[in-house]
Amino acid sequence: MIDKLIEKIQKTGAPIVVGLDPTMKFVPDHIKKAAFAEKGETLEGAAEAVWLYNKGIIDKTYDLIPAVKPQIAMYEQFGIPGLVAFQKTVDYCKEKGLVVIGDIKRGDIGSTSAAYATAHLGKVQVGNNLCAGFDEDFVTVNPYLGSDGVQPFIDVCREEKKGIFILVKTSNPSSGEFQDRQVCTGASAGSAGEETGGIDFEKMPLYEIVGGKVAEWSSQLMGENGYSYIGAVVGATYPEQGRVLRKVMPKSFILVPGYGAQGGTGKDLIHFFDENRLGAIVNSSRGIIAAYQNEKYSKFGAYNYADASRQAVIDMITDIDQAFASVGK
Amino acid sequence: MIDKLIEKIQKTGAPIVVGLDPTMKFVPDHIKKAAFAEKGETLEGAAEAVWLYNKGIIDKTYDLIPAVKPQIAMYEQFGIPGLVAFQKTVDYCKEKGLVVIGDIKRGDIGSTSAAYATAHLGKVQVGNNLCAGFDEDFVTVNPYLGSDGVQPFIDVCREEKKGIFILVKTSNPSSGEFQDRQVCTGASAGSAGEETGGIDFEKMPLYEIVGGKVAEWSSQLMGENGYSYIGAVVGATYPEQGRVLRKVMPKSFILVPGYGAQGGTGKDLIHFFDENRLGAIVNSSRGIIAAYQNEKYSKFGAYNYADASRQAVIDMITDIDQAFASVGK
Repeated sequence: MIDKLIEKIQKTGAPIVVGLDPTMKFVPDHIKKAAFAEKGETLEGAAEAVWLYNKGIIDKTYDLIPAVKPQIAMYEQFGIPGLVAFQKTVDYCKEKGLVVIGDIKRGDIGSTSAAYATAHLGKVQVGNNLCAGFDEDFVTVNPYLGSDGVQPFIDVCREEKKGIFILVKTSNPSSGEFQDRQVCTGASAGSAGEETGGIDFEKMPLYEIVGGKVAEWSSQLMGENGYSYIGAVVGATYPEQGRVLRKVMPKSFILVPGYGAQGGTGKDLIHFFDENRLGAIVNSSRGIIAAYQNEKYSKFGAYNYADASRQAVIDMITDIDQAFASVGK
Repeated sequence: MIDKLIEKIQKTGAPIVVGLDPTMKFVPDHIKKAAFAEKGETLEGAAEAVWLYNKGIIDKTYDLIPAVKPQIAMYEQFGIPGLVAFQKTVDYCKEKGLVVIGDIKRGDIGSTSAAYATAHLGKVQVGNNLCAGFDEDFVTVNPYLGSDGVQPFIDVCREEKKGIFILVKTSNPSSGEFQDRQVCTGASAGSAGEETGGIDFEKMPLYEIVGGKVAEWSSQLMGENGYSYIGAVVGATYPEQGRVLRKVMPKSFILVPGYGAQGGTGKDLIHFFDENRLGAIVNSSRGIIAAYQNEKYSKFGAYNYADASRQAVIDMITDIDQAFASVGK
């Protein structure tokens, strides 16, 4: 699947992914009206509105982009009907030839992580049948529980030729609270609470330790184009840390959130890419799907919201292109 | 909800929670046969089997226990039908008066965490209506993304009088990989990569830092019985770390996984409790729900699997009681 993703990036010339993270505030009134008329002001009505809204955006952007990243929380908030809309969105994007990255940030201990991996990437045995659940192409994974929480995802990736992106350094303001903590490494770090006295002492931020593990995991499962099925999430909002992590994880594709609405710009991204403009894929959610609510695209109006999204995709590609050009990549 | 949990623990005399984590391997053949006959060897068939299996266990144990903890991954692996079975299980347990802890281990950045909190503890605005999604009483939360990933859960807890348990030290073998890392604290920890030379230097494992944050979050939202709506997860399999964490988070109820099948015993648990036998709730999943597959309870047979579960609950309560008695608690 990493090879398909790379192929699609090269074909579209667009190392970007559209985050399908719908909220009721983004959905234009005419769509809400139609959905509520059919299904009421209920979870079912909200889910129908979300699905119609997504379909509009997908239909107007699928030829420009390699991938989408639906954020499952935005669907889960509408309960079962919301998750049905998630499933319809995943299926429809795959029909349109898009690579689907399920932004699920799951992670648990061994057998439970295996169940999540099965749910989203694999197949479960029911009697004599193998049945697929949500069946995305990639998912995001939270590493806080360590290797035995991550390995079941890698095992399913190997079997299904799918991939994951592991959270290393997230794009949010408080990501540093734990991820940036300086961890003691080297000989003197073994015993808790002891003072180091005069001993030379090395330290390294936690995200770099996690990045080191991702590099190990990545080497377990390489694709054909020099990148692994096992990638990482590193926020655009922390370019300095991103530069370090790019070197720590040379074979890991990096999924980069935080572009646009969260503050990241094209020039914050360049260091994530190799000389072939590969190695990273940049996500924008709000900036694309709610473009019509942005003054810059207000001429489109709510009725043509999906045309605004298309224009925002074109502008994002141009912004990244210009950033590449400015450094001769 | 923490007060309801405490009241139910006192009433049953059982500081335990039954983990409803069904897999196809646990479900007795007669139940699978009936479910598959009705719905086929499909996700729907599997979900029906899981639901019937759960219902049997709930009916035979609900009078003995204060709470259940369905692990959503085990349902999610069966896609939408599996999540429908999760919802039915949550609803049925609440009907039976049980406190429901959704073991979902969600966690994301601000607005996305808010969506998860809404999905599982709160209500979402749809037109003029407020609609509840999964509507558990408590959920588990992953803290890797820091405060702005956790705060939205706390906000919803305040509004809905519900609670969360934040992962601090998990029960799995590799939990130490990141959670036990020694973090540099104190004056000299500020600048990355620098050697400390002769400076005195303090360090603390990451789980203790996370525990410290949990203590801060806990103090934001106290119940009436001296414990907070904001609790923590600390595995029974690491008693030494548990002892430290109990002191670091004096107001946080601790959800303790790892008893039974994962290796924890009654005596590993005592230090989690205060002198009133409060402050912690111990989970057992496999050891209860698949008791009939354990040699000790094999006399019950697969057909009476739920009676085996009832006996296993009684034995677990006795084990913990004896451990309390042995230290005069």
